Amino acid sequence: MTPVLLVLNAGSSSLKFQVFEMGEGEDPARLFRGLFEDLDGSARLLIRDGAGAVVADETLEAPAAGQEAAIVHVAAWLRANSGGLRLAAVGHRIVHGGLAYEAPARIDAAVLEDLERLVPLAPLHQPHNLAPIRILQRHLPDVPQIACFDTAFHRLQPEIAQRFALPQALTEAGVRRYGFHGLSYAYIASVLPQYDPALAGARIVVAHLGNGASLCALRGRRSIATTMGFSTLDGLMMGTRCGSLDAGVVFYMLRELKLDPVEAERMLYTQSGLLGVSGLSHDMRTLRRLAASDPDARLAIDLFVYRIGRELGSLVAALGGIDAVVFTGGIGENDAATRAEILHRASWAGFALDEAANLSGGPRVTRGSGPAAWVIPTDEELMIARGTREVLGQIQREPA
Amino acid sequence: MTPVLLVLNAGSSSLKFQVFEMGEGEDPARLFRGLFEDLDGSARLLIRDGAGAVVADETLEAPAAGQEAAIVHVAAWLRANSGGLRLAAVGHRIVHGGLAYEAPARIDAAVLEDLERLVPLAPLHQPHNLAPIRILQRHLPDVPQIACFDTAFHRLQPEIAQRFALPQALTEAGVRRYGFHGLSYAYIASVLPQYDPALAGARIVVAHLGNGASLCALRGRRSIATTMGFSTLDGLMMGTRCGSLDAGVVFYMLRELKLDPVEAERMLYTQSGLLGVSGLSHDMRTLRRLAASDPDARLAIDLFVYRIGRELGSLVAALGGIDAVVFTGGIGENDAATRAEILHRASWAGFALDEAANLSGGPRVTRGSGPAAWVIPTDEELMIARGTREVLGQIQREPA
Repeated sequence: MTPVLLVLNAGSSSLKFQVFEMGEGEDPARLFRGLFEDLDGSARLLIRDGAGAVVADETLEAPAAGQEAAIVHVAAWLRANSGGLRLAAVGHRIVHGGLAYEAPARIDAAVLEDLERLVPLAPLHQPHNLAPIRILQRHLPDVPQIACFDTAFHRLQPEIAQRFALPQALTEAGVRRYGFHGLSYAYIASVLPQYDPALAGARIVVAHLGNGASLCALRGRRSIATTMGFSTLDGLMMGTRCGSLDAGVVFYMLRELKLDPVEAERMLYTQSGLLGVSGLSHDMRTLRRLAASDPDARLAIDLFVYRIGRELGSLVAALGGIDAVVFTGGIGENDAATRAEILHRASWAGFALDEAANLSGGPRVTRGSGPAAWVIPTDEELMIARGTREVLGQIQREPA
Repeated sequence: MTPVLLVLNAGSSSLKFQVFEMGEGEDPARLFRGLFEDLDGSARLLIRDGAGAVVADETLEAPAAGQEAAIVHVAAWLRANSGGLRLAAVGHRIVHGGLAYEAPARIDAAVLEDLERLVPLAPLHQPHNLAPIRILQRHLPDVPQIACFDTAFHRLQPEIAQRFALPQALTEAGVRRYGFHGLSYAYIASVLPQYDPALAGARIVVAHLGNGASLCALRGRRSIATTMGFSTLDGLMMGTRCGSLDAGVVFYMLRELKLDPVEAERMLYTQSGLLGVSGLSHDMRTLRRLAASDPDARLAIDLFVYRIGRELGSLVAALGGIDAVVFTGGIGENDAATRAEILHRASWAGFALDEAANLSGGPRVTRGSGPAAWVIPTDEELMIARGTREVLGQIQREPA
């Protein structure tokens, strides 16, 4: 029986999962990647094998599946369709690990309690990340579960990069700049030397640009600062999130616009960003199509690029200079126009776009002797598989 | 009778004023500067002449003065003690001019109504700025009053620098990055060529560092971006204000820490910044004294400097490079250690501190061929006097 790892990334109404052959030495090998969408509605399940071929395309019958039925279904599918595989462990993407978790951790009752306590810090994500853990504890009590955190990679930042200028009591109550997208940044950091050995020790800004977006400054492949702060709202403008906002705006929304806090928060998370400014779409591809004829679409793109430029400058200051930028995430990997506009704005730092290389996707998209820009696809699931395998190895090496 | 201008800067419990001889051609000449403190309590009035000699030191008798009695008292003092002077106009520092006011404006009923409508945008300052206008309309109805705005200098910024990534309805409701300290920046911009003719067209970041603090990026002596946004809370860490804050923190304060919005806002305005982080003092001079032995004082200073460094990088990106930094405001003009630490952090941009020049206060505090740093005392009151005289000249040239 080949031991495999199940990697879960559970959202509010979707469940993404991947299955890796655990292996040894080299990286775990991806066997399947699956997506359960619209869990409260039509509950469609799509699974592809490692080569990308669809191996399952199902719709669960009503009543709607919900997270529990979806997880049970995935486990059953694995048993039924992948003869000879044994589920050795489940790795979870957990958005918040607080201050304590600087690395992946095996989930036991105490850890789960810790992570529950962090729900107030990420009320929109953490509960959905934790629910599958309890479901699997009931259905597969003997399978070890490992938590991999989006915050962990940032925990070794200098204290000064993690602090707000707030009263000590608020800081002690957990109001700090945690940073997110850590699994993506950790993956990029791990593969940098494959692209150029000199990058390992260099001053680098990684631009994780997807529907969520942030920048991370790396020196010696460690995070020294990042644009997301306490929540996933801060920093860059995103698909539907506002990014950096004067705190005074929130009070204005409550006091003058008479919004209640729940409504105001929802507006900043779901109706702002590219969607809010354009009034058209949260999707950069749509906006790119419309930009030539629609000034609001153009403004949304321009503001997105401008804010990245400003935050890039801020991280160059944190790094004390810059040797390279890495683009990753949906927009970063696929949108040559956005990359070109960002690098054009960053020409003050010495970036010189290689237009042909950029259009063909790189990996290196600059020319000349100045700082380089690279396009590197991220792989958060592989990072979770690595972390899961590593913790599993530690467990197995422990004396009984 | 020599025509003079009265410049008023009215706060919640203090009234600062200066008297300028209007003159012609050159700048208005300062005759007196006065401060009415503790208006709701002991109401002490101190007036110095242009050479700095104390010419009045009085305490109003109980009941406490309040703003109206203070203004009447100042007007009476002027009449009684400055024979031969005629009050030609009053210039007011007005924190918020919204989008419409890009220059000083004569105050009439329509303008006053406009400015009243902006109170919700600056509820802590605007009412105190406007009250003296109505008081003077009653007591000195024939004296023209002119409004000079802290926001006006930033109104020619590119649209993209003034926008948040918010829904269009919020932007239309006035939620924009207005910027403040504009009178200070306009003054600095006006005197740059006196320090070095090359500065007039250069890429410059002005650091207005006082109890309130912000940075402004100038190109060709125009504001192209600034760190304060919608309110006076955003951007740099200040004496008691938090500066940049993840909006998610505000919701956390309301939802989890059960603060009401008024309490939360007060905490961010009055208990954060240097005071909040150090737990000791909002005053940089006090913290500098304590920093050698108190780690919290040291951390507060370090965070203050670090945040300036990050925002400086962001403005270098907005400018597409940097030719000079100008330090002004109480800390900027007087705190050599803070200047040295900021420039040390900015060495990536080519700044090379001239230690001796910095200790002696400059004006130029860098050496070498890289970007320069200057210390230039600001003079917001002179800027108001200039604006007031200019508007008065326009009024007088108008056909009756």
